[in-house]
Amino acid sequence: MLNKANSQDAVWRQRAKAVVPNGVYGHLSTRMLPEAYPQFFARAEGAMIWDVDGGGYIDYMCAFGPNLFGYGDREIDDAYIAQLRIGDTLTGPTPLLVELAEAMVAQVSHAEWALFCKNGTDATTAAVMAARAVTGRATILRARGSYHGTAPWCTPRPAGTTEADRGHQVWFDYNDVESLRAAAAQAGGDLAAIIATPVNQNTFLDQEMPSAEYAQAARAICDAAGALLITDEVRSGFRVVRDGIWDVLGAPPDLSAWGKAIANGHCLSAVMGNAKARPGIEEIFVTGSYWFAAASMAASLVVMDRIKDGAYLDRINDIGGKLRTGLDEVAARHGVGFNQTGPVTMPLMRFTEDPDFRAGFFWCTEMLKQGVYLHPWHNMFINTAMGDEHVETTLKAADKAFAALNRVRASLPPNERLG
Amino acid sequence: MLNKANSQDAVWRQRAKAVVPNGVYGHLSTRMLPEAYPQFFARAEGAMIWDVDGGGYIDYMCAFGPNLFGYGDREIDDAYIAQLRIGDTLTGPTPLLVELAEAMVAQVSHAEWALFCKNGTDATTAAVMAARAVTGRATILRARGSYHGTAPWCTPRPAGTTEADRGHQVWFDYNDVESLRAAAAQAGGDLAAIIATPVNQNTFLDQEMPSAEYAQAARAICDAAGALLITDEVRSGFRVVRDGIWDVLGAPPDLSAWGKAIANGHCLSAVMGNAKARPGIEEIFVTGSYWFAAASMAASLVVMDRIKDGAYLDRINDIGGKLRTGLDEVAARHGVGFNQTGPVTMPLMRFTEDPDFRAGFFWCTEMLKQGVYLHPWHNMFINTAMGDEHVETTLKAADKAFAALNRVRASLPPNERLG
Repeated sequence: MLNKANSQDAVWRQRAKAVVPNGVYGHLSTRMLPEAYPQFFARAEGAMIWDVDGGGYIDYMCAFGPNLFGYGDREIDDAYIAQLRIGDTLTGPTPLLVELAEAMVAQVSHAEWALFCKNGTDATTAAVMAARAVTGRATILRARGSYHGTAPWCTPRPAGTTEADRGHQVWFDYNDVESLRAAAAQAGGDLAAIIATPVNQNTFLDQEMPSAEYAQAARAICDAAGALLITDEVRSGFRVVRDGIWDVLGAPPDLSAWGKAIANGHCLSAVMGNAKARPGIEEIFVTGSYWFAAASMAASLVVMDRIKDGAYLDRINDIGGKLRTGLDEVAARHGVGFNQTGPVTMPLMRFTEDPDFRAGFFWCTEMLKQGVYLHPWHNMFINTAMGDEHVETTLKAADKAFAALNRVRASLPPNERLG
Repeated sequence: MLNKANSQDAVWRQRAKAVVPNGVYGHLSTRMLPEAYPQFFARAEGAMIWDVDGGGYIDYMCAFGPNLFGYGDREIDDAYIAQLRIGDTLTGPTPLLVELAEAMVAQVSHAEWALFCKNGTDATTAAVMAARAVTGRATILRARGSYHGTAPWCTPRPAGTTEADRGHQVWFDYNDVESLRAAAAQAGGDLAAIIATPVNQNTFLDQEMPSAEYAQAARAICDAAGALLITDEVRSGFRVVRDGIWDVLGAPPDLSAWGKAIANGHCLSAVMGNAKARPGIEEIFVTGSYWFAAASMAASLVVMDRIKDGAYLDRINDIGGKLRTGLDEVAARHGVGFNQTGPVTMPLMRFTEDPDFRAGFFWCTEMLKQGVYLHPWHNMFINTAMGDEHVETTLKAADKAFAALNRVRASLPPNERLG
């Protein structure tokens, strides 16, 4: 519950302002969230997170994805700690590098090898480099609005980048085969790769599942052109299927980027690929001080064991499904236009006729006050620590929040936080 | 001691070959090291590392830098683990973000703010982006041969990068004021930044301390041009002084990149900067899934406490000094031309008249057989877990290794590992 009586959050924001760019930088800044949202957190456990003022919330952001098995999962963290005591960042890799690559290759159909790194951006960037190396070409096709990280070639805000950094890119519309074909035609003989998220998870917009026709068209265009297909699974990986999402759609990529859920919050990302992509990944030079750290690999091995088992996916589908159905019912009862989109394990919630998100901001704030942390314009995530009791709490809170919204909606002021 | 009787290393290499690009990729691959070097390690403690066949070594690579306080430092790792149990990668930062930024800003003269990330490459790239954002210009000056990470703009091997990725860069020779001035003249009104390592630590070459004249010239050129000065302290940070190295030389940078030693092996890097650079870092969008993870910040806070205290620096200077003096004496006794360069805490060892490093490879292999892990062409590192006993063991081993080298040097075959 929100408790701003002795607002520690304000104290930390003030101190942060002095020594941290923008107070807090990047995707965890609350600058574009409702004003009441806490910026600093004190602790987390399972499905719950607590802010520095003691407010506790069911956290549907799951740290923007990494939390697949709940915060502080004992078995995963114990594996991390045991390996930390043995050896983590060393002068060479440990055998865990090999064991984890074997486990991931066994799980993902198109993958024949795995390279581990630290950021999702490391993985998407290395995949693009590998595709360029193996094809000897430069142009990549990207879907408008899709997020692939914050390297100069892909950061969503162009500040600090040069035109050259963002060269050799042609844009297309997600799920639009004609647009994809036109972009490929524009790239012509210089087409190195198409990069795409397996589901359309753009911020501020309704989420969209890819059509099999679209995914297969991307595959066919790459095959015809001698280019490589890259899927960016950083956000979606193992949250929708226990494989590559486009493998299941009959459009297996040549390269894929992974992160977040693969180590339940421990710092690890990965590039995987097939034999065609292998000469590319072997030709480029990418590395980092901590890329071979063994403790995060030990944690990921526990994660991969659970993914192999599969019960986790039934669990998050069940919980995510109940949440979706329940919220739709509550919204309908209040006569509110409320769109839930994306896989049920990665929901995005938007109000209809709410272009500046004022209704969303109000409703999310009402939910926050009742101990439910939602995001008004970014997709959320379900984890296995969530149970029926969390869904029930959420639905009860939603009932009150929709009622409160209906009382004030006509008089809500414009939303200036998204200016 | 080296023990290849039941070579587990070969088994792991074989398995790795199947599922890991090049078996092992990046800076930890042994492809360019002497053949006997183990690729896979089992554990580490203090100054020591053990390979998968049970061979134990005094490890002068220190994981390529992160190990400043010894492997598995109990206090640092306990802080990490305690925070991991409370909360690590969350939906927002913890107050540790602020406390760590405050601690680092208090330690480094030019720093007024800190932004945390995961790779050294993240930090150098964000610094370049910030400089470009704040100046509205594109060109950066770089010293030939200096390593700043593996993003497309800076990876030492151009495979997979485009000419555009590496545009807007002008090269100069390290420590050469005239060369620096000529590069700045070439950049003209488009000069955004000079980026330089505080000491010259290029691989394969004798290490070089910067002259104050050179560092100050870089500062003056930036001031005159309205450009920003960036130092890349990722490798050298807190190993030479308890401040920015160029701060001490009277050439404080506007931006600096840090990593490795700041968290003793836990995954953390940082950009720091002054007020002039702040609008730039605040304008760009850089972030990552794990950039706010609290456990590595808890570990780094212990590290920063020790750096504030300063005793650690006396310790590594003492040990590094004894190692250098001792090895010089042993080499002289054997009449071997042997160059030790760089700060004593970051030594590089090269034989004179050894252009293909065949003598270095032989000698390092002899050292390895006696339980001393050295690198024949990359700078090494001293940590506080090293003591007189490690130096003594190393000097005794060196005595035998120089003698062995003298016996075979005339007949050593060409070194084909560096082809």
